[in-house]
Amino acid sequence: MFLKKIKSEGLAHLSWIFGDGNEAFVVDPRRDCQVYVDIAASQGVHITRIFETHRNEDYVIGSLELSRLTGARIHHGAALDFGYGDSVTEGDTFECGALRLEILETPGHTPESISLVLRDSNQGDTPVGVFTGDALFIGDVGRTDLVSGREREMAEALYDTLFNKLLPLGDQTLIYPAHGAGSVCGENMASREFSTLGHERAHSPMLQVQDRERFVRKKMEEHHYQPRYFKKMEEYNLEGPPLLGPLPVPRPLSAGEVAKRTESGALLLDLRSPEAFASSFIPGSLSIPLDLLPAYGGYLLEYGRELVLLTDTQTELDLAVRHLIRMGFESIAGYAKGGLTAWQSSGRDYGSVDAIDAGALNARLEQGEEFTLLDVRKITEFRKVRLKGARHVFLGHLPDEIGQLDRNMPVVTFCGSGQRAIVAASILKAHGFEDVANAFGSMAACEALDCSMLDRSEA
Amino acid sequence: MFLKKIKSEGLAHLSWIFGDGNEAFVVDPRRDCQVYVDIAASQGVHITRIFETHRNEDYVIGSLELSRLTGARIHHGAALDFGYGDSVTEGDTFECGALRLEILETPGHTPESISLVLRDSNQGDTPVGVFTGDALFIGDVGRTDLVSGREREMAEALYDTLFNKLLPLGDQTLIYPAHGAGSVCGENMASREFSTLGHERAHSPMLQVQDRERFVRKKMEEHHYQPRYFKKMEEYNLEGPPLLGPLPVPRPLSAGEVAKRTESGALLLDLRSPEAFASSFIPGSLSIPLDLLPAYGGYLLEYGRELVLLTDTQTELDLAVRHLIRMGFESIAGYAKGGLTAWQSSGRDYGSVDAIDAGALNARLEQGEEFTLLDVRKITEFRKVRLKGARHVFLGHLPDEIGQLDRNMPVVTFCGSGQRAIVAASILKAHGFEDVANAFGSMAACEALDCSMLDRSEA
Amino acid sequence: MFLKKIKSEGLAHLSWIFGDGNEAFVVDPRRDCQVYVDIAASQGVHITRIFETHRNEDYVIGSLELSRLTGARIHHGAALDFGYGDSVTEGDTFECGALRLEILETPGHTPESISLVLRDSNQGDTPVGVFTGDALFIGDVGRTDLVSGREREMAEALYDTLFNKLLPLGDQTLIYPAHGAGSVCGENMASREFSTLGHERAHSPMLQVQDRERFVRKKMEEHHYQPRYFKKMEEYNLEGPPLLGPLPVPRPLSAGEVAKRTESGALLLDLRSPEAFASSFIPGSLSIPLDLLPAYGGYLLEYGRELVLLTDTQTELDLAVRHLIRMGFESIAGYAKGGLTAWQSSGRDYGSVDAIDAGALNARLEQGEEFTLLDVRKITEFRKVRLKGARHVFLGHLPDEIGQLDRNMPVVTFCGSGQRAIVAASILKAHGFEDVANAFGSMAACEALDCSMLDRSEA
Amino acid sequence: MFLKKIKSEGLAHLSWIFGDGNEAFVVDPRRDCQVYVDIAASQGVHITRIFETHRNEDYVIGSLELSRLTGARIHHGAALDFGYGDSVTEGDTFECGALRLEILETPGHTPESISLVLRDSNQGDTPVGVFTGDALFIGDVGRTDLVSGREREMAEALYDTLFNKLLPLGDQTLIYPAHGAGSVCGENMASREFSTLGHERAHSPMLQVQDRERFVRKKMEEHHYQPRYFKKMEEYNLEGPPLLGPLPVPRPLSAGEVAKRTESGALLLDLRSPEAFASSFIPGSLSIPLDLLPAYGGYLLEYGRELVLLTDTQTELDLAVRHLIRMGFESIAGYAKGGLTAWQSSGRDYGSVDAIDAGALNARLEQGEEFTLLDVRKITEFRKVRLKGARHVFLGHLPDEIGQLDRNMPVVTFCGSGQRAIVAASILKAHGFEDVANAFGSMAACEALDCSMLDRSEA
Repeated sequence: MFLKKIKSEGLAHLSWIFGDGNEAFVVDPRRDCQVYVDIAASQGVHITRIFETHRNEDYVIGSLELSRLTGARIHHGAALDFGYGDSVTEGDTFECGALRLEILETPGHTPESISLVLRDSNQGDTPVGVFTGDALFIGDVGRTDLVSGREREMAEALYDTLFNKLLPLGDQTLIYPAHGAGSVCGENMASREFSTLGHERAHSPMLQVQDRERFVRKKMEEHHYQPRYFKKMEEYNLEGPPLLGPLPVPRPLSAGEVAKRTESGALLLDLRSPEAFASSFIPGSLSIPLDLLPAYGGYLLEYGRELVLLTDTQTELDLAVRHLIRMGFESIAGYAKGGLTAWQSSGRDYGSVDAIDAGALNARLEQGEEFTLLDVRKITEFRKVRLKGARHVFLGHLPDEIGQLDRNMPVVTFCGSGQRAIVAASILKAHGFEDVANAFGSMAACEALDCSMLDRSEA
Repeated sequence: MFLKKIKSEGLAHLSWIFGDGNEAFVVDPRRDCQVYVDIAASQGVHITRIFETHRNEDYVIGSLELSRLTGARIHHGAALDFGYGDSVTEGDTFECGALRLEILETPGHTPESISLVLRDSNQGDTPVGVFTGDALFIGDVGRTDLVSGREREMAEALYDTLFNKLLPLGDQTLIYPAHGAGSVCGENMASREFSTLGHERAHSPMLQVQDRERFVRKKMEEHHYQPRYFKKMEEYNLEGPPLLGPLPVPRPLSAGEVAKRTESGALLLDLRSPEAFASSFIPGSLSIPLDLLPAYGGYLLEYGRELVLLTDTQTELDLAVRHLIRMGFESIAGYAKGGLTAWQSSGRDYGSVDAIDAGALNARLEQGEEFTLLDVRKITEFRKVRLKGARHVFLGHLPDEIGQLDRNMPVVTFCGSGQRAIVAASILKAHGFEDVANAFGSMAACEALDCSMLDRSEA
Repeated sequence: MFLKKIKSEGLAHLSWIFGDGNEAFVVDPRRDCQVYVDIAASQGVHITRIFETHRNEDYVIGSLELSRLTGARIHHGAALDFGYGDSVTEGDTFECGALRLEILETPGHTPESISLVLRDSNQGDTPVGVFTGDALFIGDVGRTDLVSGREREMAEALYDTLFNKLLPLGDQTLIYPAHGAGSVCGENMASREFSTLGHERAHSPMLQVQDRERFVRKKMEEHHYQPRYFKKMEEYNLEGPPLLGPLPVPRPLSAGEVAKRTESGALLLDLRSPEAFASSFIPGSLSIPLDLLPAYGGYLLEYGRELVLLTDTQTELDLAVRHLIRMGFESIAGYAKGGLTAWQSSGRDYGSVDAIDAGALNARLEQGEEFTLLDVRKITEFRKVRLKGARHVFLGHLPDEIGQLDRNMPVVTFCGSGQRAIVAASILKAHGFEDVANAFGSMAACEALDCSMLDRSEA
Repeated sequence: MFLKKIKSEGLAHLSWIFGDGNEAFVVDPRRDCQVYVDIAASQGVHITRIFETHRNEDYVIGSLELSRLTGARIHHGAALDFGYGDSVTEGDTFECGALRLEILETPGHTPESISLVLRDSNQGDTPVGVFTGDALFIGDVGRTDLVSGREREMAEALYDTLFNKLLPLGDQTLIYPAHGAGSVCGENMASREFSTLGHERAHSPMLQVQDRERFVRKKMEEHHYQPRYFKKMEEYNLEGPPLLGPLPVPRPLSAGEVAKRTESGALLLDLRSPEAFASSFIPGSLSIPLDLLPAYGGYLLEYGRELVLLTDTQTELDLAVRHLIRMGFESIAGYAKGGLTAWQSSGRDYGSVDAIDAGALNARLEQGEEFTLLDVRKITEFRKVRLKGARHVFLGHLPDEIGQLDRNMPVVTFCGSGQRAIVAASILKAHGFEDVANAFGSMAACEALDCSMLDRSEA
């Protein structure tokens, strides 16, 4: 008997494989799915069933891909008309050796969401664990804003799911959710990825709100962003995404080839560290530090536009490819071999973005210098604390709102620590803003220094 | 925040590493301890504390080895006078980033046993999990027979530990024990290695026995074997075992060198499958199929006697070395390069053991043939079901009791499926028994065929 | 600049990848070709060309598979009408960074064979190395018996290739052949896999035969076997084999499922060691110890017949699958989970083969016992030395000649050390021979003991 | 029979392991020597002898470390009084299975240098290969300037070694040298790492100089740098370096801990890319991009001074540790966890270095701006081509010559492509130079653009 969590970093997506006897089941597999096949082989089992807890909106599902490799059947909730797989409904059970899986219909995050209760038939009938999908996380509950126009209905459904279906499974029940800390699917997830219904019942903030109406109101007041790529994911995951096969292997491009590709429309996606980008970049590049790619690629990349990647190492290149194909971005033309050095050595121009530290920034504000202080954090972060005079544009929305910024004014980009700000800086530079500086350290440094221009008033 | 289980197969020993911030703690590390260093490095943390839940008796502890590599401090219970490390007592707490560890004194398995309660200070005070050592397993509780003469006291202590210390931590508490299924430290462990106090409270057989006196009596009636090597482990783990450094790398020996070594006293330890051994073995060998080495090596090997190993592959050789050094057997002279083929090709004699299947065996019994049917299972297995006329000698005790067997009588060795029986067969052959057959399939096959000579009466 | 050899053990097939700048070329890739993609990625190059030195007859070529993954062009000799790729002719050159490859037409092994001369344009024009395909090996030269009816022509062509095309490249030229020791494509290859034309010129036996007519006669007198599967490989490699994609993953089968599959026509292919098979096997199995699978699978397996595999470990199972798909055997139904133990424990019958050592065998021969001593080595081995009274049937031909053996006579199977003999024993058992023993040690042991019944007379 | 090259990137040090039968020999092992033990185990052989071709001066030898793990004997030339191992002299031979190694005394690079001729006794007496140490490389020959005062004698000895000892081994002989391209032990090595005496005889520039006196003069005219750490290596490798055991594992340090360590004397060694450093660095840091660490660490680091490392990834950290211990720098206090982001977020100051591209730099020179253009390339590079007005200080000598630079003048650091220049920039910043810019692209870009200020006159 075994159970393993497979975490896709960045998306903080958790998928699960468990097995007993000769069989294994997989819950919410990702698109680069050889990992499940390898685990199953090493455990001496065969994957026979795959479950989708709901039509995931933040990544391309791997069920079809995995089903092609293994012949496994795919199951999902009945409340949506999927273009693949079979529907299951409340109370359906599936045996996997001595393990038994029972379907709970748990709408709220989406109408067709299901949870899967795990029991060990060797040891009584008490639930051992529950796969909660996006209904219940560790430290948080699912968002209910995704079905446009049905937000109240969904919030009510989630309340019922949590208090009337999940918590009654008992304090002893282990929780296996579809996301961990860092996901866009919940703001307050714990960094701890192991918990039980009992622990959540005692401490998860929303599970303390036992009044149904108060719960619903709180959910409806929450603010969540929706990356642009969710639309594509919803189409893909309803109808079934294109099959991928082996991961694409980007080809090395010389500086001259990189120039030719970008001139004919490809986007240079620079995945290096913010510091490296700031010092020297290929003009026109979009900077997304690799760690941020899963969170912001879905806002800033366009389907169908060719990509040329730039990373420091082969390992990072491989990871970038995985991140991209998990979000459905498959048109990867190649990568800039030799990185910036090859570009610089070819005699081509490169751009740069100045660094500005918290002390200097605060001084410029104090002195009333005229410049745009562009804070690209989430609105919830901005409301808590900001610098006086800062202008807020959420990073994911910057391409749409860039027209409202004065391109003749100096700009300082600003965020939590300077990572997201460099993405904004790259967008500004690519749109012709000339005087752009990046606030490395940003709010973290301002708070560490307790800067005079901090504004904690209600915003 | 992370928590990982490291399982040593065979011993079914579970050790744990968890960390947050810049630090990590390790619970009950094994001797080949580079694995913890590697995990810590990959997580960006440094191991600062090591906890021994008790003076382990079934493997050489790795605390000293790991402490040498990392500088970490070692902690253990106060009720024993250890030759290394620092004592902790009830209520002591240790912080590891946001994780907090609290010491519970939980005697019963041994007098100085401690458990470690894990809390996440980001999320309330309710216990997240508890490291229970050998006090509480999944599906079973610790054995209380190890302190000679104090069996009742230990059983009483365990009752108090379980019902008054551990269960009160709450149903939501995850359990992190020191052993999983297959360990000699408990008969009834579940094959499932994830559970909570709530699930155990509901289903673990001994936790249903709420009457203290009944609990104590049941514990005192249990039968457990004690491998001979426990004595050595107890010495080692009280005083601190010798430091090992890198794992020994056995050298390849030609058939001639193997012959020379065994002639001058080395033991040929044959770790191949039972079938391979049966067909052809180097005279004088001890067969212990690799999977059984952790369970039976401690009964059958002698400290100080040189070993020559025989495996089919390099991978198996590496694993054999790990198994051996975990039990303190370090005098490995080399391995027989080219395996049996090299030996056979050198023109040297080889022995063999006949195979006998369940049908044939049953027929011989029915016909009243005269031979010794030697059943080497545990006495508890034997009592449940056996073949009529079988003679029971527990495999671990066979070297001591072999004098009582008639070496002029044909012998059929017998166990659960034929694996342990081959070990017995090899011992008999090495002691000069000529007519030895091994019952491949053994009791499993007899039951599958519902053999006429099965005896399920109370024994 | 890099150059790497990829060796497929068993077939002893050598393929090569080399690169410089942004490109790499591959010579004679195998079917499971992800390995080349991974090497290219780690070296920061893209595979742009693939060369087939000839229509290989002993494995399924990987060019098409690799071309699909990389987009690389495929090149081969012009003297055959291939169903894929482009023809190249004498003197064509291809640049790969500073490396330059020149085509030499080098018929002899086959009419369309080419060799590829490697130069480093940074350092003069002297050849650095030459990819010789099956024209020239280290210690041997290619076989010339494969084109039926044109044996003399091919032998003459090879002479011209060796003495007039390859040796003139100069003593300093490194040799990169398509096979190493152990291949069926040459009897006398050295175990050393690095050499130069100069070293071969001085020591390779056939290169000492400078008289053309004598060379041709010697080649025509050579005896080589042709495994049955060569026919299939020739078809595949002329037209292009079916594309495979990811390697098949066999599913675990219980003893009951194994029984059902074999009853309905599947072949149980037992890949364990000869000793393990001898002691206990599933009735009807074909034994081919894993190491021998590439050499004898092609004689003994049938295309289209379902296979159930039996190995000791997952690693061995993976390797078995690779061996099989390299020879085009893709219909793998699953594997026997739990191995023989699962089968034995189910109460099912199992067969066995006795072991007989060299001393005992010699004694039986001396005493004139009546039995068939079946020597299954190659005829060339048999002619050198054999036991008196031995009957020779080459292992690869045993299924065809089994009708000529007396199945009421006891049989002892015999070979070089007992490995191939177990394959023969399994075939005899599956054909209903009852009294079969296997001579573990076989000729190696007889010679080590200098047995009285050895016969070294000219045969 | 096997032979493998183990390359230590950066130092471009090549070591070799080969074996046959049950034994293996190692030539010139490195200090982190587990790699040889692992290869030997996987090949089923035991390392019995280790050869040092000479007292290496550019890395800490691994012979003692490897000998401790394996028990192997160490051999070296007789012309130096080593504190460990045994001397060998001309004509000594050692058998390793069918391989035979013969000692040639081949002074020139150092007086005690030996070469090792490899023969395969299965195939005649012609040499298969030769381990040449630092006598003969691919594309170059050894430097002869290391024995102060005996330069002529050494050059003469090298001539005799090459022309009278090595080349006579025959064109067919493979070359296995101790260094590949990129080593400080030769300027002109080929990027190709496989060659023969025949190919070198035809193309290696110095082997074309057949006149002994001309050869000697040319060698004496060569210019080579000697990194400061050579002295330490010579001591270590004569007497035997301290034993290391497992590699040190640096501990994570918070920004505050980093500050504390550097304030109390530790050096912050920043191993990130030049671009990342330029944009933002911890004040006082020494920048050595990881790739350059083996080449320049030995000039710029001090034995005994504590190091705090800064890398982008754990993989880079591991490699940095290996590079450092190979040069004997073992006092690694830890690493800056979270990199620059952690430092910036703590509100601490960070430095930066401007980037200047080739066009802008050329324009400043054309306009006659006053600044120091500091070219830190090797003098041989500088002599070939430079920018007008550039001042040359070799990077390795900068700390010693920094006093001669005007710290009130703006400085632009310059090299081949901007990598080495950033090291210089970091040194200037740490010494209080305020206005420092780094010429990313440097000479490569200037040449690509054919800048007007290029000066190719004889310097």
